[in-house]
Amino acid sequence: MERTPAPDWIVHDGPDAHCFGCGHRNPHGLKLAFRPCGEGAVESFYTAPAHHAGAPGVVHGGIQATLLDEILGMAVHGALDDRNLSIVTVDFNLRYRRPAPTETRLHLRGRLLRREGRDFFVEGEIASEDGAVLTTAEARWRALER
Amino acid sequence: MERTPAPDWIVHDGPDAHCFGCGHRNPHGLKLAFRPCGEGAVESFYTAPAHHAGAPGVVHGGIQATLLDEILGMAVHGALDDRNLSIVTVDFNLRYRRPAPTETRLHLRGRLLRREGRDFFVEGEIASEDGAVLTTAEARWRALER
Repeated sequence: MERTPAPDWIVHDGPDAHCFGCGHRNPHGLKLAFRPCGEGAVESFYTAPAHHAGAPGVVHGGIQATLLDEILGMAVHGALDDRNLSIVTVDFNLRYRRPAPTETRLHLRGRLLRREGRDFFVEGEIASEDGAVLTTAEARWRALER
Repeated sequence: MERTPAPDWIVHDGPDAHCFGCGHRNPHGLKLAFRPCGEGAVESFYTAPAHHAGAPGVVHGGIQATLLDEILGMAVHGALDDRNLSIVTVDFNLRYRRPAPTETRLHLRGRLLRREGRDFFVEGEIASEDGAVLTTAEARWRALER
């Protein structure tokens, strides 16, 4: 009898999964799920409802930041070798290049660039499904003792 | 008979006020209100509910970005001299210095630094009510023809 293969998707749905970005127990959150997409890289998809708009039909810059903060954090998590460390965003730089539409599936990608001690440097983007890059971000995360 | 003084607070509650950050017609939004606080500067207050947390008890970095994007945009709005221009965020750089707690009133401040043609440079911060600076941001906004 074959084993069921491990699912590709990383879903945070445990009892403490209340994070606004990825907690599947938070009814008000974005409930993102993630999957690896190459060495040090992760991806996700999100379709923003109309109530996440800033200007009509355009995803609010803060919701875009939420999406990018999540995908970049997941890229760091993949590189963590010590479960007693937690990670926090230190610097987060975004560039809004084209409007990101609501009610349209967006593709999120994040990747680890390098690690320097407890600091992790990552980059990522929000793209349309046809591959147009809409918003890009770079960030520095830091691992802290719990 | 004295006139009623103009209210200090700027509240977006018109029929199109659906912005996730400041639209008072958006039941899922933050419903921020703003008031001037000196030359080129604006302020606001926000108490994040528990469901806006990333790590437990700490406001998600993306919700903090929403708060800062809003207060910085309002600082630009105050300097706009042409109602046929709309404004968009171009670059947005955040630095997370200390955890911003949920369920605690936070003080948001934004100010215009300078204008270069259609580009507006602004800075702002999230602070605790006792004045500790928690998160800082700088941004470049651009005015576009409608």
